[in-house]
Amino acid sequence: MPVAPHIAAVMSSKMSSVIRKMFEEGGVLKKKYGPDAVFDFSLGNPDLETPPEVEAAISRIAGEKTRGCHGYMPNAGYDEARAQMARKVGREQGVTLEGSHVVMTCGAAAALTCVLKAVLSPGDEVLANAPFFPEYAHYTANHGGALRVVPPALDFSLNIPGIQAALSAKTAAVIINSPNNPSGRVYGKAELEALAGVLTAHRKKTGRWVLLIADEPYRDIVYENRTVQAIFPLYDCSVVVSSFAKNLSIPGERVGYIAANPAMGDAPQFVAACIFANRILGFVNAPAFFQRVAAASWDCAVDYSPYTTRRNAIMAVMRDAGYQFAVPEGAFYLFCRVPASTRDGAAKSAGEGIDLAFCDHLKEHLVLCAPASGFGCQGWFRIAYCVPQSTIENCGASFKKAKETW
Amino acid sequence: MPVAPHIAAVMSSKMSSVIRKMFEEGGVLKKKYGPDAVFDFSLGNPDLETPPEVEAAISRIAGEKTRGCHGYMPNAGYDEARAQMARKVGREQGVTLEGSHVVMTCGAAAALTCVLKAVLSPGDEVLANAPFFPEYAHYTANHGGALRVVPPALDFSLNIPGIQAALSAKTAAVIINSPNNPSGRVYGKAELEALAGVLTAHRKKTGRWVLLIADEPYRDIVYENRTVQAIFPLYDCSVVVSSFAKNLSIPGERVGYIAANPAMGDAPQFVAACIFANRILGFVNAPAFFQRVAAASWDCAVDYSPYTTRRNAIMAVMRDAGYQFAVPEGAFYLFCRVPASTRDGAAKSAGEGIDLAFCDHLKEHLVLCAPASGFGCQGWFRIAYCVPQSTIENCGASFKKAKETW
Repeated sequence: MPVAPHIAAVMSSKMSSVIRKMFEEGGVLKKKYGPDAVFDFSLGNPDLETPPEVEAAISRIAGEKTRGCHGYMPNAGYDEARAQMARKVGREQGVTLEGSHVVMTCGAAAALTCVLKAVLSPGDEVLANAPFFPEYAHYTANHGGALRVVPPALDFSLNIPGIQAALSAKTAAVIINSPNNPSGRVYGKAELEALAGVLTAHRKKTGRWVLLIADEPYRDIVYENRTVQAIFPLYDCSVVVSSFAKNLSIPGERVGYIAANPAMGDAPQFVAACIFANRILGFVNAPAFFQRVAAASWDCAVDYSPYTTRRNAIMAVMRDAGYQFAVPEGAFYLFCRVPASTRDGAAKSAGEGIDLAFCDHLKEHLVLCAPASGFGCQGWFRIAYCVPQSTIENCGASFKKAKETW
Repeated sequence: MPVAPHIAAVMSSKMSSVIRKMFEEGGVLKKKYGPDAVFDFSLGNPDLETPPEVEAAISRIAGEKTRGCHGYMPNAGYDEARAQMARKVGREQGVTLEGSHVVMTCGAAAALTCVLKAVLSPGDEVLANAPFFPEYAHYTANHGGALRVVPPALDFSLNIPGIQAALSAKTAAVIINSPNNPSGRVYGKAELEALAGVLTAHRKKTGRWVLLIADEPYRDIVYENRTVQAIFPLYDCSVVVSSFAKNLSIPGERVGYIAANPAMGDAPQFVAACIFANRILGFVNAPAFFQRVAAASWDCAVDYSPYTTRRNAIMAVMRDAGYQFAVPEGAFYLFCRVPASTRDGAAKSAGEGIDLAFCDHLKEHLVLCAPASGFGCQGWFRIAYCVPQSTIENCGASFKKAKETW
């Protein structure tokens, strides 16, 4: 059979795709037990309806039928879409961007993949502060790089001394994700300034410009009126990658973008490398139709208050069930500690694979969560609460039972 | 600046993206001289309107607004889309496929990229018989493989002895593309049987199963009622990759598929590896909306007769202007020989870079064509005649002038 041995090996490894596996098993369980019997918190698949403005844009664009509207455009995307994203990121980052700083991509995953292709030489390292989105490891390895994990700080803020210690001549980039998946942490200005300081000092010492990549799909989903700190004013060699998957509830449509900091040394060459990567990696261009939808509706008003309701509800449920967790400042994940075992003493609450074991145990109670070993945090698990309110309201007994029988 | 040196080097190489560069320069020239003054034959961007059935499906699906219709689905795509593609490929290949043999992808480029990721170990080789689509080289190199070019046969049929000579223990796959971009050749049954025989003999000798990849986006666009030979009945370890870019004129929407031969040893593992690749390469899934459009309208009747009209017209123009070319049996490309120079004798008609020089010369006459060095055929150039009939009718004088002043 033709499958490459190293691919077969990665596929069969325990952590290859626990989240996706859980999501797909969820589908099977729902067919077996009925959708209301299964509490599926596995995947960050937004449950909020696509906003009416976006639906209106879809209908309008479907009706336009302009000649060539489904054809190829430049690999970087439509000029109009790039210009609109420049407005968006300019507003968020407080600096002026042109469309030429933007590349439209097949979602934030593609954006990240293209940026990493542009900057990685084989053997280079990318730093990620735990907890982090597990796919970063694949996106880095695809281009011959290696993800170097910086251990989590106790409060899930940036571990600045850890980052400082991990930087080397091989470091090509640092990825940050705020609001953070899975911890819900929104990084503050002081810690980001400290990060910028560390990277600048590293540049002075080694001559290497480390790219700071801000992965921001959750920027709009924050609680208690927080704002997400802009990174462009703090550090020149930086780039934002994002999408409309989470804020406009269109993750299946694969539309996102790369926006380079105009202050970056030789930004045009960096953007050209990202466009080149978009082409040669086989993305070619972001989907034409949804580029137009995003350009038309990115700044529509969206009511995220259901996420606040759900967040408060799931926190109450988990508090009541006796679990410990981090209070989310943004995004829609509750990051919880695997409880100490009530059967065999506390031994079960630590050690390798404990979160995988606990999530398997939860699954026996028809509760699907993501174990956090893949996020770089053994002993934790993630609840994606972008689900119907009823799922949250009804899951408490199962979480309790799972804890009691653990 | 953060761009990796090897990426900067590839980008600045002459052959990095001649076709795309030509396409994007065409946009600039059209702004400068007016769209009617520029004869843009650079890119395979279909000029036929999207079929009415497809437009109707787009409008209908835009109106459906099913809950979660823009959300994530399994990485392999919607079950319904996979089932429809299984019907399509089953009909084309004359064998029974299930949806489980299909992976929906972001276009044929993504399909090819995922298949290559699934099968390539670093250092492996992929064979392509010249002329071939230049992006194959990037799609192979992305995963640490190398494209090994088999020299063209004189009539652009498969060079069976050349393939036989190029096979080695490192060969992971052979890519064929019929109807061929750029030669327009449709490979016959006898030559494909011979290819299957060579690959089977190689397996017996070395134990290595070479994957035969049929890249078939032009399958429906053939002349004189030709049909494209099925490969599944001829060779078990084979896969079809395709899209709706060319036959339904929606290249910008990025929807395509992988369909594995059910007779392949361990086909489920191969499909699983392709799904895994689709995820970890950052594609995640094919765009949700256009998966539904493709599933609903893939077998609509399309009138390709305008391509016949254009083919006959461009052949008449080029014959009249004194150029030599291959008569296209399918697709929408006219593959032409760089003429002998009329100024400095015949010396100019051969040698490295001659087709790049001639395409630069054509550009001075506001005619944009793709030089064929990147396709593995020095001394040739490609006319993509998927353009308005008027462009073909009015380009003759410029082609003549270009030849006279060469």
